[in-house]
Amino acid sequence: VSTSWQVDTKPVESVHPGLRALHYGDGLFETSLVRQTQVAWLERHLQRLRAGCMALRLDFSDWGGLTEELEQKAAEIGNGVIKTILSRAPGGRGYRFEAHQGVTRIVSTHPLPDYPPERASQGVRVRVCELRLGLQPRLAGIKHLNRLEQVMARAEWGDEYEEGLMLDYNGQLIEGTMTNLFVERDGVLLTPPLNACGVAGVMRSVLLDLAGQLGVQTRREVLRLADLERADGLFLCNSLAGIWPVRSVAGLAQFGTGPLTQQLQQVLSRHSGMVPGNWYSW
Amino acid sequence: VSTSWQVDTKPVESVHPGLRALHYGDGLFETSLVRQTQVAWLERHLQRLRAGCMALRLDFSDWGGLTEELEQKAAEIGNGVIKTILSRAPGGRGYRFEAHQGVTRIVSTHPLPDYPPERASQGVRVRVCELRLGLQPRLAGIKHLNRLEQVMARAEWGDEYEEGLMLDYNGQLIEGTMTNLFVERDGVLLTPPLNACGVAGVMRSVLLDLAGQLGVQTRREVLRLADLERADGLFLCNSLAGIWPVRSVAGLAQFGTGPLTQQLQQVLSRHSGMVPGNWYSW
Repeated sequence: VSTSWQVDTKPVESVHPGLRALHYGDGLFETSLVRQTQVAWLERHLQRLRAGCMALRLDFSDWGGLTEELEQKAAEIGNGVIKTILSRAPGGRGYRFEAHQGVTRIVSTHPLPDYPPERASQGVRVRVCELRLGLQPRLAGIKHLNRLEQVMARAEWGDEYEEGLMLDYNGQLIEGTMTNLFVERDGVLLTPPLNACGVAGVMRSVLLDLAGQLGVQTRREVLRLADLERADGLFLCNSLAGIWPVRSVAGLAQFGTGPLTQQLQQVLSRHSGMVPGNWYSW
Repeated sequence: VSTSWQVDTKPVESVHPGLRALHYGDGLFETSLVRQTQVAWLERHLQRLRAGCMALRLDFSDWGGLTEELEQKAAEIGNGVIKTILSRAPGGRGYRFEAHQGVTRIVSTHPLPDYPPERASQGVRVRVCELRLGLQPRLAGIKHLNRLEQVMARAEWGDEYEEGLMLDYNGQLIEGTMTNLFVERDGVLLTPPLNACGVAGVMRSVLLDLAGQLGVQTRREVLRLADLERADGLFLCNSLAGIWPVRSVAGLAQFGTGPLTQQLQQVLSRHSGMVPGNWYSW
């Protein structure tokens, strides 16, 4: 899969310089896994886009057309990644937008990331980022295009770790730079509430549902670094990575892969037809 | 002046879809007034870009070339607005960037905004925005491209007010959606510190310096809505608007134009060769 771009369903090599995504990050995105010609968890990606459109008052309505476009792209590339950007359309200079200013959609295809399968089977090393997430309930949960916090957090290290944990300004554990976080404790699956910051990932919602179907108790719970001492395990997840157990949090703690984590990896594989610990080998 | 675009000094009608400004708001911008073929406060705009490049670790070095480009554009358009965007250049998918990933610069020209001169002479009506600014010291002060807070704050009203005041999550008065804020009290000029959020405007720095030259005491001071009761006046400012005295804060207070505000308007006009209260009539 080579990288290619479409704007409002037309193949392009460049985009309008007035797009408000470019000027203000005024828009949303989704990064979706394509496997065997299907967009994984397509309906959940669309649901989150809908929630984002509400929050940003983006006047997008062509959900049928977008679904069709994504399905067509998935059929074309077979296996890979589709990124969807919804940007508020170009308008005058300035922050103000019109109620019906319209939305430009950019759909691009990319190769699968080359994550080593050991990340799922053996676990990953993580660190705690120095940059703290600011609190902004109005933008929390949605996958908007204002991502400087994640960009600058990811710039804190190179290849020494696979991911960084992010705290908010109250010291609450929120997520990884590109993943959501789950903690396993006494047979209960805990994940931070994302009311004030963070991105409510599609894989996070998939796993909360799968755990529920397994009869595993799940709870959105405020977590701090000190809570990691009592954890039986933690893992990170996103749509492309699946589940990565955390092997070590630098300077703080080491973990094995908890029993719930293993169970969820197996169920997720079965659910998605993938081999556990080797996400891309189907 | 019609809107036109240049990317890295070449005239264009579109831009690369992989620009990180588009994907993450990973970049900076400046909006500069051009009058009589000169970029007003050019050196200060460049200074703020330099500070922004440090904060975002943007590897931009062609300051001579950028200066030349802006001066040339100003000569071409005579009077108008130049917007400069520095975006981290396209790279792989994901938040990570390389140390020397490079920077794409987009320079565009626009007509002057059609602000009625009464805004400067009679003052403006403002409201207090419901959206509160999140605290993020790592991004405070610089003019980065993550502007959803301003976009959503500006969407709270239509034409009923000329500007909205923004508080942070601690209830501190910070700025307007597109302006900085000054309060005049007992002959002292107060403006909020911008350590945790807000944009440190070029006009704000111009006015702090001009006030100093006039022997007026200036202080960066934490201000809350309750402090407006004791104010002798307040005003908003930016590079394009100059100084707008605030006539009323909806539901809270009314003001005349304070003596310091008048003095600063006069000095700013003299300094910039503009007629007070009629910013664009020179």
